[in-house]
Amino acid sequence: MTSPQRIPPRDEELPADPFSELRPSQPSPGVDLDDESIPLRLRMVHHIKSLQSTICTALESLEPEARFQSSYYLRDASKGFGDSRVLQGGETFEKAGCNISVIKSTLSVAAVRQMRAERFDWWDGVSELPYFVAGCSLVVHPSNPHAPTIHFNYRYFEIQDPKDPNGPPKAWWFGGGTDLTPSYLYDEDATHFHQSFKTSCDKHDQSYYPRFKKWCDDYFTIPHRGESRGIGGIFFDDLADRSPEDLFRFVRDCSNTFLPAYYPIVEKRSKMAFTEEEKRWQQLRRGRYVEFNLVYDRGTKFGLAMKEPRTESILMSLPLTTRFEYQPEIGTIEGTREKRIMDVLRKPIEWV
Amino acid sequence: MTSPQRIPPRDEELPADPFSELRPSQPSPGVDLDDESIPLRLRMVHHIKSLQSTICTALESLEPEARFQSSYYLRDASKGFGDSRVLQGGETFEKAGCNISVIKSTLSVAAVRQMRAERFDWWDGVSELPYFVAGCSLVVHPSNPHAPTIHFNYRYFEIQDPKDPNGPPKAWWFGGGTDLTPSYLYDEDATHFHQSFKTSCDKHDQSYYPRFKKWCDDYFTIPHRGESRGIGGIFFDDLADRSPEDLFRFVRDCSNTFLPAYYPIVEKRSKMAFTEEEKRWQQLRRGRYVEFNLVYDRGTKFGLAMKEPRTESILMSLPLTTRFEYQPEIGTIEGTREKRIMDVLRKPIEWV
Repeated sequence: MTSPQRIPPRDEELPADPFSELRPSQPSPGVDLDDESIPLRLRMVHHIKSLQSTICTALESLEPEARFQSSYYLRDASKGFGDSRVLQGGETFEKAGCNISVIKSTLSVAAVRQMRAERFDWWDGVSELPYFVAGCSLVVHPSNPHAPTIHFNYRYFEIQDPKDPNGPPKAWWFGGGTDLTPSYLYDEDATHFHQSFKTSCDKHDQSYYPRFKKWCDDYFTIPHRGESRGIGGIFFDDLADRSPEDLFRFVRDCSNTFLPAYYPIVEKRSKMAFTEEEKRWQQLRRGRYVEFNLVYDRGTKFGLAMKEPRTESILMSLPLTTRFEYQPEIGTIEGTREKRIMDVLRKPIEWV
Repeated sequence: MTSPQRIPPRDEELPADPFSELRPSQPSPGVDLDDESIPLRLRMVHHIKSLQSTICTALESLEPEARFQSSYYLRDASKGFGDSRVLQGGETFEKAGCNISVIKSTLSVAAVRQMRAERFDWWDGVSELPYFVAGCSLVVHPSNPHAPTIHFNYRYFEIQDPKDPNGPPKAWWFGGGTDLTPSYLYDEDATHFHQSFKTSCDKHDQSYYPRFKKWCDDYFTIPHRGESRGIGGIFFDDLADRSPEDLFRFVRDCSNTFLPAYYPIVEKRSKMAFTEEEKRWQQLRRGRYVEFNLVYDRGTKFGLAMKEPRTESILMSLPLTTRFEYQPEIGTIEGTREKRIMDVLRKPIEWV
């Protein structure tokens, strides 16, 4: 077991933000996330750090030996920092990664033009726009083919007026979601997973779960296969339909739902016996995961197209091992469990 | 061993072309490929069928048991046909695929607009354009980490005047190339491979090899890794700088160079002993192959974006098994063979 590296960030360009106090492995228990006297962006940073630590610790409790390795890094010109924590080759987890990323930089004119126009009706069309984003993303690929892969991403975005870069944000929004990708379907797991997120959503808005469930089904599709990546969950972007404080509470609830929604499933399924053929099926399904992430996933494409992409952090989402077979028969035979999941991936189900 | 399927094509829409005589597994030895009284497009079809058969037979000679499985298919509305031949899980070849594809259809206005404008100075800007394309592509992933992966693609394209769809083509060109992707570098193999293609190119034009070698290095790069996919070879597109007959001879020479360039290498390297660590390195390099093909390869992206993509044929290029590790140390240690190939992938070499 190696301790996480602890390199203090040098954030000369961020004097107003005490980033220097935010060590990657210190979840800052002293900060009240509801304290509106602290800028929301800072509380979001506290939240994602705390989330990352809590999750990595919980997942490690299912591993006899393997531990998360932390790579803390600063972005060029101190425009932000990140902490990629990855555990690979474990007994329970073939690969698990949980990244946080904080960026404070400027959007080019071209980048602003690609974003939703109604957010920028105040923009002069020629200035680069200061922005801030803080997010946490996770992908877990368990070893056991009966234990599902899971992914989440939660992020907070702010755009600043270039004439008043330290004033209140001119635009802000939240994005995120959590989705489950089983190789073998257990209805009770699927229901538990979706129910967990429905409960979290319902506390904030009764319309959220149905909207975000459909958004998730729509987003995680692989058009060239005519199938979904997994059995969905929730997904949303550009969310600013309530106050920032309300939505921050919502996003915290969603991200905190990861552990109760997933931990009992992976704990239980990881103990199951499995055959070589079941492992093969899992590897083939992982191939599809790679296809989605590299061909369609917007975050991956956006990340890789950056000037100096942090490729290892972006692609930590890829499974450790995969299989790409030409026209495998498995998954096509009526009455098999492999065909069952394929049917659901081709036609998503309402689980709750 | 399963015999290739033999489904005769029904090409009602192609009465002028005796496609019905072109069975996928019959290489048509009676056709003189230099006989200019036969349309070039038809001779190209004969050539790629013959090429496919010759190559599959040759590669099978290195396999004690595994054989190519053929899937012959017709495109919708008899707009063409294809034959995908794939061998997987062999002793020498983990996965090898050789596809031929023939399409006779129309290009949408949007598709024409994406192509090189100077080819279409006669176009009215609103008509869909009849086109024909015939091509053969191959990817071979050997089992032994000392034996290199190889890829080629050769194709002939014609655009017809919509007012005279059976007249001579208004535009035509050839495209193609062959490139080698070793996990471990053997200088004598690299030199033999490049020398083989240089010799074939030099017979036609002394400028071809240097131009097409550079084009290959430029095309097969993975920007987010700052490295090439492999050690190159030749690559060209939109080639129409000589008569169609001259270039057809050139393309035949290049495609026929595959076997003498590659067979002796894979035959020799497949007999070498290898360690578990060498296999792991091969798997990691295969992960990069997947990254290039899914994120950047134009043929793959174009194919997957088609309305009804033949996904299995397009993605037969992906290796059977891969590995995606987060920040592996292997490949970074000075003095190792893994670091040696990485150095070459980061800075391509002139081999001949």
